[in-house]
Amino acid sequence: MYNSALLTDLYELTMIQGYYLLDNNPEVVFEMFFRRNPFKGGYSVFAGLEDLLGRLTGLSFSESDISYLRSTGIFKEDFLAFLAGFRFTGDLYSVDEGSIVFPSEPLISVKSNLIEAQLIESMLLNIINFQTLIATKSSRIYTASGRAKIMEFGLRRAQGIDGALSASRAAYIGGATATSNTYAGKTFGIPVSGTMAHSWVMAFESELESFIKYAELYKDNVILLIDTYDTLGSGIDNAIIVGRLLKEQGRNFGVRLDSGDLQYLSEKVRKKLDDAGLPDAIIAVSNDLNEHIIRELVSNGAPIDSWGVGTQLVTGGKDSSLTGVYKMVARQFDGLLVPTIKLSNNPEKTTNPGIKQVYRFYDNNSSPLADLMTFYDDNLISGQTYRFNHPMFRYKSFKISQYKEMKPLLKKRLEGGVLCTELPSLKDIRDNVIMNVKTLDQTFKRLINPHIYKVSLSDNLAELKFRMMDEKAEQNGG
Amino acid sequence: MYNSALLTDLYELTMIQGYYLLDNNPEVVFEMFFRRNPFKGGYSVFAGLEDLLGRLTGLSFSESDISYLRSTGIFKEDFLAFLAGFRFTGDLYSVDEGSIVFPSEPLISVKSNLIEAQLIESMLLNIINFQTLIATKSSRIYTASGRAKIMEFGLRRAQGIDGALSASRAAYIGGATATSNTYAGKTFGIPVSGTMAHSWVMAFESELESFIKYAELYKDNVILLIDTYDTLGSGIDNAIIVGRLLKEQGRNFGVRLDSGDLQYLSEKVRKKLDDAGLPDAIIAVSNDLNEHIIRELVSNGAPIDSWGVGTQLVTGGKDSSLTGVYKMVARQFDGLLVPTIKLSNNPEKTTNPGIKQVYRFYDNNSSPLADLMTFYDDNLISGQTYRFNHPMFRYKSFKISQYKEMKPLLKKRLEGGVLCTELPSLKDIRDNVIMNVKTLDQTFKRLINPHIYKVSLSDNLAELKFRMMDEKAEQNGG
Repeated sequence: MYNSALLTDLYELTMIQGYYLLDNNPEVVFEMFFRRNPFKGGYSVFAGLEDLLGRLTGLSFSESDISYLRSTGIFKEDFLAFLAGFRFTGDLYSVDEGSIVFPSEPLISVKSNLIEAQLIESMLLNIINFQTLIATKSSRIYTASGRAKIMEFGLRRAQGIDGALSASRAAYIGGATATSNTYAGKTFGIPVSGTMAHSWVMAFESELESFIKYAELYKDNVILLIDTYDTLGSGIDNAIIVGRLLKEQGRNFGVRLDSGDLQYLSEKVRKKLDDAGLPDAIIAVSNDLNEHIIRELVSNGAPIDSWGVGTQLVTGGKDSSLTGVYKMVARQFDGLLVPTIKLSNNPEKTTNPGIKQVYRFYDNNSSPLADLMTFYDDNLISGQTYRFNHPMFRYKSFKISQYKEMKPLLKKRLEGGVLCTELPSLKDIRDNVIMNVKTLDQTFKRLINPHIYKVSLSDNLAELKFRMMDEKAEQNGG
Repeated sequence: MYNSALLTDLYELTMIQGYYLLDNNPEVVFEMFFRRNPFKGGYSVFAGLEDLLGRLTGLSFSESDISYLRSTGIFKEDFLAFLAGFRFTGDLYSVDEGSIVFPSEPLISVKSNLIEAQLIESMLLNIINFQTLIATKSSRIYTASGRAKIMEFGLRRAQGIDGALSASRAAYIGGATATSNTYAGKTFGIPVSGTMAHSWVMAFESELESFIKYAELYKDNVILLIDTYDTLGSGIDNAIIVGRLLKEQGRNFGVRLDSGDLQYLSEKVRKKLDDAGLPDAIIAVSNDLNEHIIRELVSNGAPIDSWGVGTQLVTGGKDSSLTGVYKMVARQFDGLLVPTIKLSNNPEKTTNPGIKQVYRFYDNNSSPLADLMTFYDDNLISGQTYRFNHPMFRYKSFKISQYKEMKPLLKKRLEGGVLCTELPSLKDIRDNVIMNVKTLDQTFKRLINPHIYKVSLSDNLAELKFRMMDEKAEQNGG
């Protein structure tokens, strides 16, 4: 199934059959962007690019796909013959995987004929929306923990098998240290992690025996789950017995709390460990955590070294989807690519016309100041002052003249459907995310009520957009 | 990847290596259940069984899976050799796919050796948790619509590719009429549906031309999207022009609203259609719908025939995971399967020990009255009075003597790892869900504050549970 072009909404196919039969297949440019940061946050982390490019470069309809489409009775034979030879042959531009991104700026730009651009919409959005959602969640959790160790173990609560796999990948990109999902470890080379469940402890005559047996079997990463029976009544004492034995052998260990009040218990457990001469012992916790709970515990000084996060990390919790969309911004007329606009009664749903580039301006500390959308072909000159126009409200603007540098974010990834860039390793993507988040001003990283990062229109783009809006309004009778 | 046994949490593997090396591999029984209905609802719809059984019967580690495990340095060669020959050879019991189910009753019961039962935990939970979540959401949406047509089109916002595919399957089971996901249509035989997006309308010189062209191309299911420019200003009028042409040809059509106030617009559009002599024209709507919005519109008499639901149907919206768990309830000692219990400081987290059957009692209208958990081997006698004991509060109970019949819900699906039952078609599962939901008393189907359906312990089970709790308390010093 991996590369099946059938992985699309039926209406994409009914529309492109129309374009094909009516010979209406001009060159177009579609851009993908999202309308608001998930989790009421101040930024998002772009993810899913490698998966998307892998699918696009191999996209085709198998014989059985074609047979299936024939069986629906909706499609004509010459269109089916066309689909049998279908390949994606367009150009694709995107920001780097792992970029910090913001609402309304293009993350991906697809230049191809209308049929190809339309067909890939559903699949492109599926991959980028979900992985960006989870990479963002992961970055928030990682930030809230004060960049501690985050273990992702969401397989059992993820939305399907691939929901789990691509969540593991995106969670790692966003800052998670390791995954419990062994298949994700194999597939993506993500570090894997995991020791014992309550069932291990219950599988032995006594808690102490279960701990001793585990420590005999595994040399490294001995993390004893101490809440099966009674955390402070028996668990920590049995763990300390084993910890002291390990210390004599020059080995470290840790304990995990999976229930109860994590602040109270972690403090009590830390004290017991310290009193027992085991100050290096690690305390790991889990139990339906999210960034807000973690932030609260960290702020209150809970002595926790490692966080296990499952459900909310791999599903996004209450915010279970990113609102990414994919809209036409230019279309060929008389041999030229002409900007297009989609109006809406909701001003924020009116699209920004034209083929765009995004420039990010940085201050002297290499911290992002603001993003400017320009025409793709505009060449910005370093050091020059630029006006940043509000994308919705005419006449609302500011200027930036003091900046260290500015960089274009969109780069070509596919040319004629063929990969034309090297793909970084997952580890490199993760390192980049962590560095990028680090340089982002703290005000944009607040978990609640963050400062709004400005994404603006260049003078040229603003002029175009508002002129096109005026023209459309006039066409519709003002 | 479909049958890879590597699709598990690492700790399952570290634990089972321990069981293997320590020769601690008794017969056990694990049961899967969940702790609360999602969406604050009064019932859930069990789904995912066929997928689960398919994976279990083919489960194995490939050579590359074994190589990967070797590369982690965690596993010993004789254990890896054991894994290379691993197959699931246990028995599996479950309720029918599409059953109405309730918190705390076993939905699945696995009887096998400890190693096999432990290994499959993460994968089993992944599949059942997610598909049950979505089938439940779908049933709520279908019910709220007054059993109208529900079109699932969540591909672009689903959690990964498989998140989309298995959501399409579960949504269909729960009551959705069709999916937009063409690959899901091919894979599962679900009816597919879809006509046009705004981009179709924008691909022509005028809205009217786009409508005319579409109606020329497609004989059936002409649903015109009328909000691209101005629903009441141009969209509906252009649609009526086309609708009249179609009527002359003896063909029906419809319109779709994808923005704005759906109550207001659907009423205005209905009136225009009726005034134009097109009373059979269908009105379809979409725009981030869920069961509450649909219920509100239906209650207020909005003249809507068909509902397109995407994001919230395929992700569950704010409730993006089901809290299903998988716990050991019995374990071999001296050749006998002996009940086990997991205590917790939270009374609702203490498990119900013993290998269980669930009997559903029905009233004279074949509507479920309550469910009784018994020992699997207990034979209930029709007509006899039974006491229903509260699973947490001792001495809280009621009796049922007036009932039409009672039926056991758990049936054997796998024997020795081999399928031993016929699997119903997806269509039959869906028909059953719809019938089952119909017979469920209205009070359990309220979207908000539903009546709580009783799931109780038989006298035998209650006696066992509370005795084991007493014994454990005594062991721990009272």
